[in-house]
Amino acid sequence: MEAYLDNSATTPLCREAVNRMNYALTSCWGNPSALHAGGIAASALLEEARAAAAQKLSCETDEIYFTSGGTESNNIAVFGAANALKRRGSRIIISSVEHSSIEEPVRQLEAQGFDVIRLRVDERGRIDERQLYAATNQSTILISIMYVNNEVGTIQPVEAARRAIDRVGANALVHCDAVQAFGKIPVKPHKIGADLVTISSHKIHGPKGAGALYIKKGTRIVPHSFGGGQENKLRPGTEPMPAIAGFGAAISALPDANAALAHVTELRDYLVSKVSAMENTVINSPPDALPYVTNISLPGIPSEVALNYLSGIGIYVSNGSACSKGHKSRVLKMMGLSEERISGALRISMSRYTTKEEIDYFLAGIAGAQKNLRKKR
Amino acid sequence: MEAYLDNSATTPLCREAVNRMNYALTSCWGNPSALHAGGIAASALLEEARAAAAQKLSCETDEIYFTSGGTESNNIAVFGAANALKRRGSRIIISSVEHSSIEEPVRQLEAQGFDVIRLRVDERGRIDERQLYAATNQSTILISIMYVNNEVGTIQPVEAARRAIDRVGANALVHCDAVQAFGKIPVKPHKIGADLVTISSHKIHGPKGAGALYIKKGTRIVPHSFGGGQENKLRPGTEPMPAIAGFGAAISALPDANAALAHVTELRDYLVSKVSAMENTVINSPPDALPYVTNISLPGIPSEVALNYLSGIGIYVSNGSACSKGHKSRVLKMMGLSEERISGALRISMSRYTTKEEIDYFLAGIAGAQKNLRKKR
Repeated sequence: MEAYLDNSATTPLCREAVNRMNYALTSCWGNPSALHAGGIAASALLEEARAAAAQKLSCETDEIYFTSGGTESNNIAVFGAANALKRRGSRIIISSVEHSSIEEPVRQLEAQGFDVIRLRVDERGRIDERQLYAATNQSTILISIMYVNNEVGTIQPVEAARRAIDRVGANALVHCDAVQAFGKIPVKPHKIGADLVTISSHKIHGPKGAGALYIKKGTRIVPHSFGGGQENKLRPGTEPMPAIAGFGAAISALPDANAALAHVTELRDYLVSKVSAMENTVINSPPDALPYVTNISLPGIPSEVALNYLSGIGIYVSNGSACSKGHKSRVLKMMGLSEERISGALRISMSRYTTKEEIDYFLAGIAGAQKNLRKKR
Repeated sequence: MEAYLDNSATTPLCREAVNRMNYALTSCWGNPSALHAGGIAASALLEEARAAAAQKLSCETDEIYFTSGGTESNNIAVFGAANALKRRGSRIIISSVEHSSIEEPVRQLEAQGFDVIRLRVDERGRIDERQLYAATNQSTILISIMYVNNEVGTIQPVEAARRAIDRVGANALVHCDAVQAFGKIPVKPHKIGADLVTISSHKIHGPKGAGALYIKKGTRIVPHSFGGGQENKLRPGTEPMPAIAGFGAAISALPDANAALAHVTELRDYLVSKVSAMENTVINSPPDALPYVTNISLPGIPSEVALNYLSGIGIYVSNGSACSKGHKSRVLKMMGLSEERISGALRISMSRYTTKEEIDYFLAGIAGAQKNLRKKR
């Protein structure tokens, strides 16, 4: 038996994505920029994916820019907005629990002289809206707040960014990293007042190597890379077609969000009730987190030790963001958790394909971990 | 019958690449950064591809950095070298016939104040080595010259860059865009004295969405994107695994370069002799071009008209770089060709899979184009 519960790191591909990629690989492998029939067919496949993304975000197709993934979309958004608006102001506001692909680019800008405000979060991982309002001034050019936290599942009040900007009449852009929200809850840029929204393929059962950036029509951002005219010159280079084709198919294959959410909520509630009933466990995710992500701690058992033990019996979870490979969680630290809880943290992340059997297998697994790993110590 | 003769734009995938990608898509889809068994298996697949690339370039595995493709590799090389060395000098030397993913980043740097020298080329598309030596001074920090031109096939004397630097004792890096050379002629960074070399997957029968940058051990360049720790922090973001797995397989499947080159040379010689014997044709590629690329002109027939006609009968060629979609060729202009020849240019680009039947079909196609399109005008 295996239990794959690391879906916030990456997801197994859905059948639809694999099929569409195979079509792209074997029958429709032309260069979308080529002017002949082979190029035109590839271009049609590209636009099919763009239409799927636009429909899901309730936006226009020409507001979707394909990239190689969430990290590239986030880099384009942060650098692109800052460079486009640097003459208007220098303040950039982000949360203190952003993904490294927001935090690190912003840190670069900070070193260049931009004035960066990182919003603190409470014990639920939620930003302080009053601090957001207080920090937003006339000099603010960008506010970037993630939709759903990748480590604990906290849903942020992302629509507050636009309200804060409107209150002071600043000329700022709003970016939202919606990588962990897209496909799980409705993500509608115009509803949350976002000018820029990042989504990623491999978190929704599409392949790694494709992502997109929504850019509200009329929004000018400076490109981050330069070359050919692809993606309206915003993201040059031959489009990663097999991955984009798979991304499009994965988007089209997304089921009714409410039905999937109900299924995952039931599993999460079951998981949390069982884990809570165990000794020496603590739940780090807030009760109102997106149920796809549940962070727990087994205080006294270092994450790596638990991960390794669980992996050995076919249970795959993580100790935080895969991108931070082994480093201690900045998110849990910002939430004010004790060193012991941070060291013993495990992230259980589900998908619509997750089963009760997998959760039961995981529960048996951590019961075994508690027994065996604590005994050994 | 079809004749795909646009292999410099993109290539059909080899069976080996498709198979390895399917393994990555269906059985080995973990996140290579994940610490559990699923991540470790994906990481092994990533390292398998890295080993294949390193072996082909005769370098160490830790000198290979995977990217999303040639454009990203070129951007990282140009911006990374310039930002790492900007305190030492400001001169950047490139050829005037580089791909747009070199020319455009360099143009950005020029706008920032870097001192850019673009080497002129002769009627064969070859840089002037004397100009290279004269232009290389103590202030030079980067020389970037492509190995094989993507539009006409000219092979540049890339090893001259290192000689020019050594002659004046400058502290400069050498980058070589080897996208059109890799897999066709031996590309050995240490032999050509390059610190940075760009290669791409989809030009050698691998998938679109993967490329690599060779970085000589000990060479410091500044990252262009920021986020997780992947690829030694040089190229953050979850690795585009299915594409990298396919890239690795495509590299491993590369046949003996000499045998493939002999096959393609024979076809090119046949093509050139037949085209030369036709009325109203002219060969734009130099006789010593890499035979994979042959540029010709049908003066008086605009490229787009010929392309469209040929596409209608299943013959796929281009009028230059796919990335410049429809724009007039800068390369042919730099070679001093007449407006009429530039307007009527066609690029025929072959692969090791190209057959004599395809060339014959193409020859019949342009004979028909000459007859039908000239008559109509």
